[in-house]
Amino acid sequence: MKKLIEEIGLKNSFLVTSHIDPDGDAVGSQLAMASLLKEMGKRVVILSEKPIPKKYEFLPSAREIVTRLPAGCEHQVAVVLDSASLKRLGKIEAYVDGKFLINIDHHPTNVHFGNLNWVVPEASSTSELIYHVIKEMGVRVGEERATCLYVGILTDTGGFRFPNTTSDSLRIASALVKEGADPSKIATQVYLNRSMDEVLLLSKVLATVEIDGGIGTMYLTRGMMKDMKVNTEGFSDHVLQLKDVDVGVLFKELDGRVKVSLRSRGKIDVSMLAREFGGGGHETAAACLVAGELSEVKKRVLEAGKRLYGRDNSDQ
Amino acid sequence: MKKLIEEIGLKNSFLVTSHIDPDGDAVGSQLAMASLLKEMGKRVVILSEKPIPKKYEFLPSAREIVTRLPAGCEHQVAVVLDSASLKRLGKIEAYVDGKFLINIDHHPTNVHFGNLNWVVPEASSTSELIYHVIKEMGVRVGEERATCLYVGILTDTGGFRFPNTTSDSLRIASALVKEGADPSKIATQVYLNRSMDEVLLLSKVLATVEIDGGIGTMYLTRGMMKDMKVNTEGFSDHVLQLKDVDVGVLFKELDGRVKVSLRSRGKIDVSMLAREFGGGGHETAAACLVAGELSEVKKRVLEAGKRLYGRDNSDQ
Repeated sequence: MKKLIEEIGLKNSFLVTSHIDPDGDAVGSQLAMASLLKEMGKRVVILSEKPIPKKYEFLPSAREIVTRLPAGCEHQVAVVLDSASLKRLGKIEAYVDGKFLINIDHHPTNVHFGNLNWVVPEASSTSELIYHVIKEMGVRVGEERATCLYVGILTDTGGFRFPNTTSDSLRIASALVKEGADPSKIATQVYLNRSMDEVLLLSKVLATVEIDGGIGTMYLTRGMMKDMKVNTEGFSDHVLQLKDVDVGVLFKELDGRVKVSLRSRGKIDVSMLAREFGGGGHETAAACLVAGELSEVKKRVLEAGKRLYGRDNSDQ
Repeated sequence: MKKLIEEIGLKNSFLVTSHIDPDGDAVGSQLAMASLLKEMGKRVVILSEKPIPKKYEFLPSAREIVTRLPAGCEHQVAVVLDSASLKRLGKIEAYVDGKFLINIDHHPTNVHFGNLNWVVPEASSTSELIYHVIKEMGVRVGEERATCLYVGILTDTGGFRFPNTTSDSLRIASALVKEGADPSKIATQVYLNRSMDEVLLLSKVLATVEIDGGIGTMYLTRGMMKDMKVNTEGFSDHVLQLKDVDVGVLFKELDGRVKVSLRSRGKIDVSMLAREFGGGGHETAAACLVAGELSEVKKRVLEAGKRLYGRDNSDQ
């Protein structure tokens, strides 16, 4: 971390970025890092491949995140956050090519792609690491950065429910609240922000619940979606409501393909299963896109899951 | 608190009890308090009007909670936890009558019924107060008590989502994890422990969602329940998933009566509405039993709610 702070001090212009399909930790850690760099008088651009999820738009300075680089924008350093490899950046990979790369992450699978790598698998989230950077520099965290970092810790620990919820992550959450983060306001924005249509759709999805060999499944067809413009993020978490389920899977029918969202309680690494189908992710949350018809994809993923995690119906 | 500790030191036999329909804080604070008293060499009985909810049975020494006093059992002191008044004890009120009463609570509505009252409305939970007692006495918290107290803080803050989630409550949660409480194991027991039937029933309940004047409602009929033996605890929390809703109400049809469960995000005190119908509870969670037919009760409660909280359809 000392080397990291030294390096930041020497450089003037930064690109801050993170992985595709940004989650709360990606968004929170980027915003807090960028805010810190700006306070140090640096030029900063925050680049995201796609617009961030609507539920994170309430975050201070979320509007500063751009999806394309401003014309003539040059940067010396690319700070890549919460990404195990450069592939996780999607199209943004091209913009970090040839720059001085700072890699800050908590994924144990991180491939140390940076010129400077700070990877701490014990940390609940990358936001937790940015908190340590700010404290080490002796800078005030402040309400804005505290709010961003709280979102990162909250979402990456599944609302303090996943096994990465440590004494440290709760202690830092406490410190962030002292700095001005509002836990109930943030939780409401992140978790309690559904439309009527979303709740009605969730109702239909819950009705499809099944358990097979320790794997809970639900699905969402295009017919169920109709023409509703609804955000189905978080639906997959509902599969883990089931007891006696180690893995939760939500199958979402798209045009000719199926988005498979995988969730685990932490005992099992679902990113293994996602990788078998060309996807990826975390131990507790991963996803893949599989070509084919819903019922057939469901069958294939379930078979692979039972093979990988070695629990069949007989031990239920 | 000093006086409390002094008084405990002087007495030998204790009845530890809490309110009817015990929640996680009632159970957690009772078990931790009883464990502390036992370590001090006191005789202790933990008395509950009814068996505790199944999801708390995993707690260390939960089996020691009895629903009737052992024959010949006499106690000098009754420690009443998490209860705003003696009425909240239901039938147990008779057993504390005439004893030296210690009242430890965090409800702002507490009527100070004890011979010794320690009421701290700023505390997230009674479990938080028991934590302070243990620390003040210089006793080790230990894994067992830490687990009980973590359950109390977790559930009373709605999984760290309600406005009573303070920097202090998170700091204490962090300390309890350091003492051995397992956050993800506990959250799984408390929140992620539903049967297939419960999820299917929840699906039906979500399909009944409506919003009227800032009040979200869902209902559960006897027809939907059929003969299923399901635990519907926590269903009412799902109404607050809706954005733009200040109050969530679940109507559960019983035999000739309707159980009305009220939830708020903290801006509104739902116990006011519960009291209008002879019920009670907290600011963020309250309930009442109303005689009558479901649709009629729903109409009456909604009307009272809109009158009390003064938001009609026009400001949506």
